[in-house]
Amino acid sequence: MEQQLQYFDEFPVGATFETARHTLDRAECVAFAQAYDPQPFHLDDAAGARSVFGTLVASGWLTAAVSMRLLVTSGTVRSLVGTGIDDLRWHAVVKPGDTLRVRGKVVELRDWPGSTRSGIVRVAMETLNQDDRVVMSQIANVLVPRRPPG
Amino acid sequence: MEQQLQYFDEFPVGATFETARHTLDRAECVAFAQAYDPQPFHLDDAAGARSVFGTLVASGWLTAAVSMRLLVTSGTVRSLVGTGIDDLRWHAVVKPGDTLRVRGKVVELRDWPGSTRSGIVRVAMETLNQDDRVVMSQIANVLVPRRPPG
Repeated sequence: MEQQLQYFDEFPVGATFETARHTLDRAECVAFAQAYDPQPFHLDDAAGARSVFGTLVASGWLTAAVSMRLLVTSGTVRSLVGTGIDDLRWHAVVKPGDTLRVRGKVVELRDWPGSTRSGIVRVAMETLNQDDRVVMSQIANVLVPRRPPG
Repeated sequence: MEQQLQYFDEFPVGATFETARHTLDRAECVAFAQAYDPQPFHLDDAAGARSVFGTLVASGWLTAAVSMRLLVTSGTVRSLVGTGIDDLRWHAVVKPGDTLRVRGKVVELRDWPGSTRSGIVRVAMETLNQDDRVVMSQIANVLVPRRPPG
């Protein structure tokens, strides 16, 4: 998708997009974990080394948050009001130094019950690392206004 | 659930828990949005007033992140390694000044394909505000080690 999409009726099912990239550094990983996911393997190198991951890893919620930032700043969609997320899966660990980007595909347009003014655009997204490995996948349900009549 | 749960085999299906509470302030809402969801209605009062929400609102991903913090700091589960989230829904807006807590219920124990050492505990969770309104719901899939034999 090249242009910025504004109205429900404009979203082409099957269209794909890709965002810019963001490299996570250790400070961002640890600061996010301190605020929102203070588990030892997100905070401390030694605890990470002892954990099932074998190293300090980023919170999966940081991967989700960075994916959202990449989507918003890509400007592909004018307004990203989500009603919810389906099938979010964390497939592989994300570590400081990893470079993430998001690849998306419009998979379905759905009516929004109770509203004729907006619809739900379902977008399947994968967050990939610098080795093109999918680290997270999700289907976002985005509430998008229909084109005003006239 | 009173005690801290450590092993898959200990999780009682049907058991419920509730976390402590966290009050969001405007600075936290705006700082999170600047970092991870820089849409105008999350950043600026005037833009919030003009938006579909009618006021500055918190990012739904902040609600998810705060819910994670409340879960981790509640100490109910020893290690919260998630494989994914199902059916995440944002039901109502969250604004600065709102006080959130999480109510959870163990709904299912599942085998983890390819591993006999861990299983998946499925936990249905609701994030509520100070008026007992559900602002977010989700089903978390948590990877929990089985009790070592012997």
